[in-house]
Amino acid sequence: MTYCLGIVLPEGLVMASDSRSNAGVDQVALVRKFELVTQPANRVIVILSAGNLATTQSVTTQLRENLGSGCVQDLFGAPTLYEVARIVGDKLREVTARDGSSVQPYGDPTGSFLVGGQIMGESPRLFQIYSAGNFIEATLRSCFMQIGETKYGKPILDRALNPDCPLDEAAKLALLSFDATMRSNLSVGMPIDMLRYRTDSFSAANMAMLTAEDPYWTSLRASYSNGLSSLVQSLPPPPIWG
Amino acid sequence: MTYCLGIVLPEGLVMASDSRSNAGVDQVALVRKFELVTQPANRVIVILSAGNLATTQSVTTQLRENLGSGCVQDLFGAPTLYEVARIVGDKLREVTARDGSSVQPYGDPTGSFLVGGQIMGESPRLFQIYSAGNFIEATLRSCFMQIGETKYGKPILDRALNPDCPLDEAAKLALLSFDATMRSNLSVGMPIDMLRYRTDSFSAANMAMLTAEDPYWTSLRASYSNGLSSLVQSLPPPPIWG
Repeated sequence: MTYCLGIVLPEGLVMASDSRSNAGVDQVALVRKFELVTQPANRVIVILSAGNLATTQSVTTQLRENLGSGCVQDLFGAPTLYEVARIVGDKLREVTARDGSSVQPYGDPTGSFLVGGQIMGESPRLFQIYSAGNFIEATLRSCFMQIGETKYGKPILDRALNPDCPLDEAAKLALLSFDATMRSNLSVGMPIDMLRYRTDSFSAANMAMLTAEDPYWTSLRASYSNGLSSLVQSLPPPPIWG
Repeated sequence: MTYCLGIVLPEGLVMASDSRSNAGVDQVALVRKFELVTQPANRVIVILSAGNLATTQSVTTQLRENLGSGCVQDLFGAPTLYEVARIVGDKLREVTARDGSSVQPYGDPTGSFLVGGQIMGESPRLFQIYSAGNFIEATLRSCFMQIGETKYGKPILDRALNPDCPLDEAAKLALLSFDATMRSNLSVGMPIDMLRYRTDSFSAANMAMLTAEDPYWTSLRASYSNGLSSLVQSLPPPPIWG
């Protein structure tokens, strides 16, 4: 399984993915589902992947090979992030058209992506690319998108994330969302790759690979867990009914 | 959609269900998914239902008609809660054998159940009956079971529920689990039917139907929401990386 999360805010973007890949219990591996494409002072693009690993790796590998080629699928040439999303969707269709029917007897060949970033002249944007290659864009009214194991990590975001959130607050909530997901689904695992991208910085420097032993991560989840226990205990029990 | 939750503890049982039934957006109704069967000083049995409403209502209606009949599917005659689970599973197989192929072209005919309760001579027990009519029993090592929209409400239980929980604490956690579910999935809705059953009481008196306006419910969710926001805000943001 996989968990990928993108958040778009006026202050910037948070993009994060886990690292567990599994094809049955005897084939568990660590992979990076986080693809970063940058062009100095011009664009920062993050592509997060979920689904069939052969499919999603083919998509990102081919897109990386195209960089600077000037072809219609060159992410350096895309004038908008909408165009980047269209290119990712088209490439996904190409790969599934080529491999899909051969893979189908063995398992699901499909994949999906979150594409977030900023291209000079635009605000930061965030797109979700479906298995069909079509896509939707996040807005301030629904400022986060998830792919993979999306449910366990959604309540904390539904409760606490809003468009006025500072970027660092959103990054903290993103990590709490990963914590909830990993507690309830063992097939989502560390390390977490996470970028905090600040609007108009065109810098991907604030990027980390958080391991299970990372001091901030361990302290965050312990403090949250203890705080939540205290909070629940502080609430009065239901009255006697009947 | 539906959310049903059962918790079994040394102190007793918490059994709870929501009331939203929907078959497409234009056919939303309120139904009770909570079936209570009691025999004074001898047994308290709760059957919670999820899935195709026609199927699950047929099961519970026929089982209610059988009460006191002395037939092999008489819940008053079952010597153990295991036997009750077997009867519910058998009845589910009968109903789906009769209706399944006719219903299939229009939608999923299957249903599932949580069966919790106590029969004189046993401790309280909790079973989950699958669509296939087979079933599993909860243990202290995994003391809660869910059917329907199970994911959003699972993190709070994974974190805070343990076998040493007092019954009232478990009831509070159950309501917080419903709150999380209803915030993230609009097709789970009020009122909530909930029984707190205390071991060896053979009484179903501590039973409530909580509406959206219930003062305890509104105060619980507001306090939890505010407390969670304060907790998240009190945690330090991630350090700058890179």
